[in-house]
Amino acid sequence: MRSIEWQNGAVTMIDQRLLPTTFQMLECAECEDVAEAIRDMVIRGAPAIGAAAAFGMALAAQRSKARSRNDLLSDLHAAAETLRAARPTAVNLSWAVSRMMACAEEETDPAAIRDTLLQSAQALADEDVEINKQLGKHGAALVQDGDTILHHCNTGALATVDYGTALGVIRTAHEQGKEVHVLVDETRPRLQGARLTTWELQQQGIPFTLIADNAAGHFMRSGRVDIVLVGADRVAANGDVANKIGTYKLALAAQDNGIPFYPCVPTSTIDLSLSNGDEIPIEERPCEEVTRVTYQGQAIAPERVNVANPAFDVTPHRLVSGIVTENGIAYPPFTLNLRRMVERSSKTGRLTEIERGQ
Amino acid sequence: MRSIEWQNGAVTMIDQRLLPTTFQMLECAECEDVAEAIRDMVIRGAPAIGAAAAFGMALAAQRSKARSRNDLLSDLHAAAETLRAARPTAVNLSWAVSRMMACAEEETDPAAIRDTLLQSAQALADEDVEINKQLGKHGAALVQDGDTILHHCNTGALATVDYGTALGVIRTAHEQGKEVHVLVDETRPRLQGARLTTWELQQQGIPFTLIADNAAGHFMRSGRVDIVLVGADRVAANGDVANKIGTYKLALAAQDNGIPFYPCVPTSTIDLSLSNGDEIPIEERPCEEVTRVTYQGQAIAPERVNVANPAFDVTPHRLVSGIVTENGIAYPPFTLNLRRMVERSSKTGRLTEIERGQ
Repeated sequence: MRSIEWQNGAVTMIDQRLLPTTFQMLECAECEDVAEAIRDMVIRGAPAIGAAAAFGMALAAQRSKARSRNDLLSDLHAAAETLRAARPTAVNLSWAVSRMMACAEEETDPAAIRDTLLQSAQALADEDVEINKQLGKHGAALVQDGDTILHHCNTGALATVDYGTALGVIRTAHEQGKEVHVLVDETRPRLQGARLTTWELQQQGIPFTLIADNAAGHFMRSGRVDIVLVGADRVAANGDVANKIGTYKLALAAQDNGIPFYPCVPTSTIDLSLSNGDEIPIEERPCEEVTRVTYQGQAIAPERVNVANPAFDVTPHRLVSGIVTENGIAYPPFTLNLRRMVERSSKTGRLTEIERGQ
Repeated sequence: MRSIEWQNGAVTMIDQRLLPTTFQMLECAECEDVAEAIRDMVIRGAPAIGAAAAFGMALAAQRSKARSRNDLLSDLHAAAETLRAARPTAVNLSWAVSRMMACAEEETDPAAIRDTLLQSAQALADEDVEINKQLGKHGAALVQDGDTILHHCNTGALATVDYGTALGVIRTAHEQGKEVHVLVDETRPRLQGARLTTWELQQQGIPFTLIADNAAGHFMRSGRVDIVLVGADRVAANGDVANKIGTYKLALAAQDNGIPFYPCVPTSTIDLSLSNGDEIPIEERPCEEVTRVTYQGQAIAPERVNVANPAFDVTPHRLVSGIVTENGIAYPPFTLNLRRMVERSSKTGRLTEIERGQ
């Protein structure tokens, strides 16, 4: 089962807010519902929200009452704005929207636009699964038999259309017969590690131990971690990596203990238009994510306290060992090698949007 | 109001498990109740559990039915074992028990032992408040008007008998009229920051912002932190600092951004018998602290997952700017200067136990 699919003329996704206690699908009948689902993290993870945005565009085309090409393109531009505004940090969202707009603009009549958008969204979703499997193969070469892998947030099937990025690497290593053990950062405040990564690893029979984020440094200093694998929401041209809040401290602890630290991303996450990580917008999420365990959860702080809740941080490229993609692993100097990696993608006919910048 | 007091022939303490929602006192009628309260973190914080252990010894003496000096000392040795076993990392517990045993052994008859233990426990508690106020004055010199201070766990009145160590420094700076703002790490898994530090700061009218532990690195990298102040549970002779889990990653992020990092401790927390931090025992706490928000809380992970829950970590002395005590601030080289600091304490007639080793 995929995290997101087109079913009966609508977009259906696993409601990730309810896991691990409840497995429930949510149907989005309108493009605005998809944007709301992205905002509220029904679906999350950079590749998954890219796919959601693509399906959102297809849905907008289907629902539009426009009869002319221009009117339909105008409706699609409005939909694109709504989707792009849903979450700012992961570049995949904007990338997918741009790619869909480019497909629409190539067509000459409304029916063809509607057809091509649905087909393109499906293709983007299929491609995501294929990319993750390729990425998994490249990354698995970094994992040795017997390794303990530290992992932050959720980068699995739920964070993508299927298979996963960093968790896809771990899954590939496991499928290759390597004995691996995963140390799962719980990943406050949304607890994607505790709620989603444990749930996926349990289903795949991959051994793991759940830890509080605070404990990660202790395990590294105690010599009990061999490699750190994470995802990313946006990679700047110089290799600076924006990822789930807490990744930066993790990378520091990896460096301090000589442990390799690899973000695992589809090349669509690489944003060559930004020279460094300080240019990446960092989303500020609602305070209730910190003061309550979930939106419906128990209060863990006094009422009416000031809260800051940045959802991502930037890890400087000097702390990054390499960046694993579907086209291979980019090593320093990143400014040169990330560009080569993206060029390799665009030669295969994919991911051309990224070169035009966002 | 103190976090712990002797009242009506029993030990009364604030039940810190219930804050911030419920303020309730817990009465311990037996020494075993005190040990259980320490184990279950009704009372926590290195200086506070030192005081609790001292009152526990006094309680054991009061409750003992022994008629001879030897029988009473034998009962006290058993009580000492029970208390020492309650939690392993904070040296203050063992230090307070040793100090009480030494007091008892100086007396010649059971009535005098009972009297001296109660007086000594009271004196230790009074001394703790005085030490914290001295420590606060020394530490406040490090805090500039307008500073934003990052703080981990709870080191306030609740973590001591009263006033606090690192929070005592912040309180002193605030009382001196300096405008300070505290970034409060929520401190998973027990959430001492979110539950207790916010509650104390709110009462004292000191402005603060609550953040997930994962966000601390982001705020430091964004130039929004001037100094990091924490407590400690044990400081080795070389300046390695065992403190609440997560402190090590915080110290790395401070160093990476050129931000001073100061543990604030009474000299009773300095353990010259251990040459470095790797010799400090690290407590492993129950898994439910990670899988549930509190013991009575909501599940945040699937059932039956492996969990590791180390309660403390060790911060190498190379990451420590200085160690604030009631006798002044110890700077590198720590092996020399911590010994001097402890010697200064013992010359005033206090804290002689620490020199005999634990």
